[in-house]
Order: sequence, then C-alpha cells, then structure tokens
Amino acid sequence: MNANMQDMKDVVYSSRVRLARNVRGLPFPHRLHGEEEIYKMMQKVKEACDKVVATDFYQMRGFDPIEAQVLVEKHLVSPQLTQECPYGVAFVSKDETISVMLNEEDHIRQQCIVEGMGLDRAYESLSQIDREIAKTLPIAYSPEWGYLTACPTNLGAAMRASAMVFLPALTMTGVINSFIRKYQENGITTRGVYGEGSQAEGYLYQISNQAAIGMSEREILDRMNLVVSKLVEAERIARQNIAKHEGIKLKDKIMRAYGTMLYAYKMSSQELMELSALVKLGVCLQYLDCDLSKLNRLIVESQPATLCKLTGKNLNVAERDVARASIVRKKLN
Amino acid sequence: MNANMQDMKDVVYSSRVRLARNVRGLPFPHRLHGEEEIYKMMQKVKEACDKVVATDFYQMRGFDPIEAQVLVEKHLVSPQLTQECPYGVAFVSKDETISVMLNEEDHIRQQCIVEGMGLDRAYESLSQIDREIAKTLPIAYSPEWGYLTACPTNLGAAMRASAMVFLPALTMTGVINSFIRKYQENGITTRGVYGEGSQAEGYLYQISNQAAIGMSEREILDRMNLVVSKLVEAERIARQNIAKHEGIKLKDKIMRAYGTMLYAYKMSSQELMELSALVKLGVCLQYLDCDLSKLNRLIVESQPATLCKLTGKNLNVAERDVARASIVRKKLN
Repeated sequence: MNANMQDMKDVVYSSRVRLARNVRGLPFPHRLHGEEEIYKMMQKVKEACDKVVATDFYQMRGFDPIEAQVLVEKHLVSPQLTQECPYGVAFVSKDETISVMLNEEDHIRQQCIVEGMGLDRAYESLSQIDREIAKTLPIAYSPEWGYLTACPTNLGAAMRASAMVFLPALTMTGVINSFIRKYQENGITTRGVYGEGSQAEGYLYQISNQAAIGMSEREILDRMNLVVSKLVEAERIARQNIAKHEGIKLKDKIMRAYGTMLYAYKMSSQELMELSALVKLGVCLQYLDCDLSKLNRLIVESQPATLCKLTGKNLNVAERDVARASIVRKKLN
Repeated sequence: MNANMQDMKDVVYSSRVRLARNVRGLPFPHRLHGEEEIYKMMQKVKEACDKVVATDFYQMRGFDPIEAQVLVEKHLVSPQLTQECPYGVAFVSKDETISVMLNEEDHIRQQCIVEGMGLDRAYESLSQIDREIAKTLPIAYSPEWGYLTACPTNLGAAMRASAMVFLPALTMTGVINSFIRKYQENGITTRGVYGEGSQAEGYLYQISNQAAIGMSEREILDRMNLVVSKLVEAERIARQNIAKHEGIKLKDKIMRAYGTMLYAYKMSSQELMELSALVKLGVCLQYLDCDLSKLNRLIVESQPATLCKLTGKNLNVAERDVARASIVRKKLN
C-alpha cells in the first residue's frame, strides 16, 4: 500500500473486510440449538478478542430494539443478526472499527471497517483476531474447498472485501454504468448503497468481490485495490470535467445545498443524503471548506435509532426531521 | 406623529408624498413646445431647490438609458419621464430622498420618499421646496378647484400620499382582501407593488389616497396615518398568530431562504424578492438577526440597470443573476 492509496478520502468513504469462520464439528447456526455449546464458543471468541482489542459485548436475545438498531445503523452488525438470530451475539471494539458476530449465517463473522481506502489495513487488523480465534477453536477448513461456510458462495477464502465509494461525477455523466458492467464480468459487484440496484442515493456505491473460491486473500485484496484505484482516478477526472462544463450552475446548486444544511429546521434523511452528497462534491471541487469525515458521519448520526438514542426520546418521523436538522446545523456551524 | 409611528419599519417599508404643480399661463407639458420657456422654468425650479437642498440635475434628452433606468429603479423618477417626455428634467437630492421632475404629466412634480412610516416628515420636507418654488414661479391655483393639474383626478390638494407596506401575514391568511375592499370604498387604493392587482410580489403593497378633491393636505395625511397604523396593528397580530400556528414549518422555510441568500451563486430578481420577503418576516419574528433596511435596499441594488452600472458592464439576464447573487452574499455576510 503506497501513500497515494491512503489519500483517497475524496472518493473512498470506507473500506471493509469480512471473514466468515465456522467451528469444526458444530452444526451451522441455522441447525444449532445447544445452549451450552454456544456459550462455550462465545467464551472462546471473547478470550481471543480480549487478547487483541477491548470490546463491548451485546447479546441479541432481550436486547433493546433501539440499541440493536443503532448497531445496525453504524454497520457494526447485520440487520439479520438483530432480527433472525436468537443466539446472536456481537463483540464490538471500543473504537467501533472491529466487530465479531456469532451465530449469524456462520458461527463467526469478523468485520473491520476503516475510513478511506484501507482494505489492507482492515485485513491486517482482522488477521490478528482471526489467528487468536484459530488458536482457541477448531476452525472448519478443507484443503480442497478452503474455509467451509453455511452458504457455498462464501467458500474458499471466505473473505469479502468491499469499499464504499462516492462517485458523483461518474454518476452524473452516466459513465458509472460501463464500469459496473465491466466489473460484473470480473467477479466484482457494484451496488448503490442506500438505493436499489445502480440507483445510488447520495452517489454512494459499494464495490465488493463476488466470489472467493480459488483466490487467496492477497489476490482478492490486490484485485480490489486495483479496481478501486482505477475508479478513483476516473472519478477525479470526471469531477474536473463536470466542474469545467457545468461551471456556475453546479457551484450554485452545491452552495445552495450547503446553505440549506446550515440553516434548515427540518430535514428528512433522504434530503440530508442528497444535500450532503452535493456538499461533499463541493469540498472535493474546493468550492467550500468542510471536513469530509464529518459530513459522512452526519449520515450515520442522524439515522432514526441513533437520533432516538441521542435525544433519549422515542421520536416520530416529524420529530426526527427536526432533531436531524438541529444536529446538522450544530455539527456544521 | 408619535414615537410609535416612527417605529413601524417592521411593516412600513417607505413613505412617499408627491405634489403636482403647474405654472400659470403655460400650456400643460403634453402641449408645450417652447424651449425658452421650459429653460426659464427649469432655472427657477433649480434656484428654489438650491435654497433648500443640494441636488443633482438630469436632462432626459440624450440621457444614457442605463443611467435613466437606474433612476427609475430607485423610484426617483417615473418610467414615463425617461421614455415619453422629450423635455423631461429631474433634480434629485444628494441623499436621494427628494426628487423634482419637470415636464412629466405636470410641469412640476415633487416627491419625497423616506424609510419607514414618515408621511408627515416627507410632507414637511417637500413643503419647504414647494414654498420656494411658489416664490419664484406663478403656480396655477383656483380657489374653487385648488391646484390645477393636467389630469382632473389630481385636482385639489394635488397631493398623493402613499406607504409601501410589507404584509406577509395578512397575505398568507387572506385577510388582506377584506382590508383592500374596505379601503377602496373609502378612497384608498391598495395594490401589489411589483405584481398585478392584489397579487403582491414579496408581500409588498402600496397604499395611497385615490382622490384629493375637497380634502386638505392635513386631512389626507391624517387619513393615511390612521389607515396605515391600523394595517400595522393587524399585520403584527397576524404574524404572531401564524408563527404560533405554523411553528417549525414556517421557521424552516424562512431559515432555508436565509441560507439560500447567503450561499447561492445565481439568483433571479423574482427569487430574490421571494427569499428576502421570507427573511424579512423571519427578522420580524426574531428567528434571525438582519438589518431590515439592508434587505430592502438589496431589492433596488440588484435591479437590472443598477447591476449594470455597479459592475460597469452591459450584463445579460444570466450574468445579472450571477452578479445579483454575488451582491446578496456580500451584503449579507
């Protein structure tokens, strides 16, 4: 990883690596009903985590639904874990970069999310925990198939590497579609993060490796690093082009979005997504000065459950819109 | 005039008094073609003005059209004077409160505009000039009809007193229409300042006395003072009511308008009118702090000809929208 890789926050929102592991001799979670065995596995994973990083522990059974939803909104656990997994458990590192889910689709799912472009960094962090877990628990591994997983699409490295990328210019110009098609043919999935299909809300896309069979972790990371850095390059060029082409019209649109964020008294999450995407583009085009990470965090901080937790109230939609606008004003002013 | 009268800037944008005078023995302007007599009258009026206030002198013949339009946009001369009066002349006081037009519909039309509620003040200022003019020129006056004017509707006191009032709450609630009907029956005209009929753009209305026959100047002023102060009272109550009723919805709309004014990079005059009206309402409801006079001046300062004069360029519509937004940002930040 070179210095240039680290410096892609103008395009790469975050990088995520996920590893799926299962315990040899134990039925997969959807067929697992032995409380004692589950408790034993939980203890072993806890011991392994403790050796690497300080974590908080969350048990899904009887868990407060607001608190559970907050973890989902922060992308620390899957919605599935909170809704469909009675034996679901999560360990979350204090800095909220690493989380380990137990008894979701697989026995153990480890995940690391870091800001900006950092797949290698994320993978290295996870590897430490993964090694500790392998020391305390027998992991299901076949020399022929690699890591065994509940769903065959995850077999092999059982690793998914993904980057959340911000592609306003490639979206506005429509160029993104040819990238999506090309990647699809090469086992890379691109999807809009909040919208459906390629209709990306806030111009955010998640790029991830589709299958891991027959590829090593290193090969997956290298391929993803290459794909993302090409996207970054294309997006940067496209931005300069639309800035030149659209001129004052685009600047007006962006600056109005910024003014609205600074002064509005109610705002839906959909509108916040749209406005902050424009403002982020404005930062990248140097129309205005604002911290990109702060803008990205605003999206998470103003999700429904996170808002309720923050205000300590069970807010309805209209009340959330007011609370959301208030947070946006405070954080940006 | 009491202290309360002076303190109506939250509703009364400006007050204007206009006096029409004609020189005895001289044909009315539309029938006047003697250059020497016109020059003589001009000299006499200049002498009279000089005794009271320092003025700038503008002759319409051969006058730069941009400069002429600037005077119109500032409401210092009528469009008619600049377009249809070959012998048209204007004296404008340095502080731009007083203007005297020669050879418009009447030989001499004197006008004084002051900020806020100040019809009495405006009338007193004009009276000084009017007395000086009457000393140097024989004014056409009939004991039976009063001052003689080219159009019979102006006969009598030949005075029009008007107030430009800002009535957002009475407009939003529709209550303004009953006021307009009632005033109509009592010889008071109410019309939208920039829009057609009662469709007031920017919630601005001009209230003026319709006929002056049979009424003294004092009676006209008293009636207008009464009408305006009642409107002010009604508008203030209506504002408190809509603020209570509309709550956060109105505040959101107002604050977004303010944010847009502070950050937009292009803006039509129509949009500026709408946004600044909302912002002015916001100032009156104490949602934000901004100088009302400054907001009112923005409307004039960003009119087409005034913009061209300011930038020293013959701007097209799109360029004016950019220049207008730039002025708005600079003045408000």
